[in-house]
Amino acid sequence: MSDEPLLLTPGPLTTSKATKEAMLRDWGSRDAQFIELTATVCQKLEAIAGADQNTRSHVCVPIQGSGTFAVEATIDTLVPRDGKVLALINGAYGQRIAKICEVKGRAFVTLKTAEDTPPEADLVAVRLKDDPAITHVAAVHCETTSGILNPIAEIATVVAEAGRQLIIDAMSTFGALPLSVGEIKCAAIVASANKCLEGVPGVGFAIIKQSELAASAGNASSVSLDLYDQWQYLEKTDQWRFTPPTHVLAALDQALIEHEREGGVEGRGNRYHENCQTLMHGMQELGFKSYLPDNLQAPIIVTFLPPDDANFKFDKFYAKLHDRSFAIYPGKLTKVDSFRIGCIGHITRSNIENAVEAVAAAIEEIGVTLK
Amino acid sequence: MSDEPLLLTPGPLTTSKATKEAMLRDWGSRDAQFIELTATVCQKLEAIAGADQNTRSHVCVPIQGSGTFAVEATIDTLVPRDGKVLALINGAYGQRIAKICEVKGRAFVTLKTAEDTPPEADLVAVRLKDDPAITHVAAVHCETTSGILNPIAEIATVVAEAGRQLIIDAMSTFGALPLSVGEIKCAAIVASANKCLEGVPGVGFAIIKQSELAASAGNASSVSLDLYDQWQYLEKTDQWRFTPPTHVLAALDQALIEHEREGGVEGRGNRYHENCQTLMHGMQELGFKSYLPDNLQAPIIVTFLPPDDANFKFDKFYAKLHDRSFAIYPGKLTKVDSFRIGCIGHITRSNIENAVEAVAAAIEEIGVTLK
Repeated sequence: MSDEPLLLTPGPLTTSKATKEAMLRDWGSRDAQFIELTATVCQKLEAIAGADQNTRSHVCVPIQGSGTFAVEATIDTLVPRDGKVLALINGAYGQRIAKICEVKGRAFVTLKTAEDTPPEADLVAVRLKDDPAITHVAAVHCETTSGILNPIAEIATVVAEAGRQLIIDAMSTFGALPLSVGEIKCAAIVASANKCLEGVPGVGFAIIKQSELAASAGNASSVSLDLYDQWQYLEKTDQWRFTPPTHVLAALDQALIEHEREGGVEGRGNRYHENCQTLMHGMQELGFKSYLPDNLQAPIIVTFLPPDDANFKFDKFYAKLHDRSFAIYPGKLTKVDSFRIGCIGHITRSNIENAVEAVAAAIEEIGVTLK
Repeated sequence: MSDEPLLLTPGPLTTSKATKEAMLRDWGSRDAQFIELTATVCQKLEAIAGADQNTRSHVCVPIQGSGTFAVEATIDTLVPRDGKVLALINGAYGQRIAKICEVKGRAFVTLKTAEDTPPEADLVAVRLKDDPAITHVAAVHCETTSGILNPIAEIATVVAEAGRQLIIDAMSTFGALPLSVGEIKCAAIVASANKCLEGVPGVGFAIIKQSELAASAGNASSVSLDLYDQWQYLEKTDQWRFTPPTHVLAALDQALIEHEREGGVEGRGNRYHENCQTLMHGMQELGFKSYLPDNLQAPIIVTFLPPDDANFKFDKFYAKLHDRSFAIYPGKLTKVDSFRIGCIGHITRSNIENAVEAVAAAIEEIGVTLK
């Protein structure tokens, strides 16, 4: 078992056996069966996002690649060449959105807050009022740099009131935290298969307001990442423009069946919440401190501060946990030393309890005293 | 079995059981085991391309997504913003290269020949002499639109003589037809996992001349598709910049083991050649005509002309073959009605013999007379 550790990371993460077994066949990408699979997956993703299935107010556009590919594709497609983005930044993923705007040559400004501080909706409103050139606001739902939950509903309200469009990077929350386009006004929600949906990596998607998408022809400065073209081709032919990751899609299809079976967003969210509580409580018992206050902590990934003991070295700690079949994640904070443990994936409270026991044993082995 | 047809297409194609089974575990993308897997895969791909393993004259840069993502990434990375591309076009994939240049805002000109006519190296030389602004030539090795083999060695010679850089789209030949950077001077060879290497779709790669790559910082107008950044990050951390398709990589690793076991490029090419000969001979016996003359036919995919009989409808023919567990491919020629049958993937001569028998039965069932 130590050859295949349980992945306590923000993804790729541990998936179910059935999800992986769905990859044990080959699919012709232009075959009727795969066409049906694509349609089913897209419909289910739209339903999870609360899109109206009759009016198709928002439509799902899948895209090959990692989550970043999907974020870049969405910005490139929806933001006109002469548009301007306000990127809300309190971690690496907000920063990446700004970098995408910069490299793609889209005008942008940023609203930065500290890594433990959510952006205030009121300040967003002020920025939008002061700068009429801003056409789009881009926000990260859960910034996995720290694990912080940003106030997406409040942000959406002020963006809508200001008549601008909101693009939500919901990579690490989609499918586990409620985020419905019926309630949260937005142009797009972007996510990927291999986070809370518990699929395997290789495909992302955006749930895009159809009126915005229909008006986006010619915006993109990329062939591969043009979601307008991707959507049009899918609408006309039911097929992907370019070779889809067929096996990855088949795994996502199975993962979505399991998501439904667990009780959808609510059921999935409940399990992750329980995992997170168990983790935080257990680690606290051992003497670890988490970085964020409880009210800002999303049940996705928890940032812990290293013990105040010179014997603690992350690499050693990681190796000892790996020996016990747990893979954790390094920290990503810019100013504070830290490490992270994820709560998502095909894992349960008892896995987390075992992980906490492994942490206790690892700490002892490397000679670290916590209390 | 009719639920999972044998894929006689240009990919995604039929892969081995062991290749699919390699996806039955989850990998942490920043874990030592996955780091090693990435390094192994890249080294093997460099070796297949004939790159000098000591000087690392050419290095492999993998990229998430389909083959088109890899082609776009290579052009975006290697062609400077003020560069100019000569795209050699005799089918849809050459055309796509021109479209990529257009959308990315790179200057380009084209040299078009008919779909059954390879570009002449002499004409390429003339174009390069006449237009000193051209910095890069982009050519497709086997244009799967028809299945034609383009004279890549002759083209490479004139491009090198003119002091320009050659980008080869070897998507459908890499691993089955000899293409060594030691013999064919080029800046890059671009391909993907799910063609002649018999992996599953979801990842592409470029084997790039290191001196060209090192000089390419800042060329790309994309974050996701920047192969310079991808390479630099891999060199520094041994990790991918953004979440890799871990399962797809594991499948490619296994597929490369099988490629080696089959005798590398030569062994793989021999089997495909035998498949192709068996297919062409069998179809000819039935009275079908192939589109290309034998000397231009690559052993990858064969374009056939439909029978001169009003009863022949591709969709019906396709369905009858699908009932018999064979998935073929529609035609893609712009001026001639056609259909295509692939020779690549985890298939042998006896599979092809069975496919020809299925064609005979299908034709009879839909009431088509061939001779």
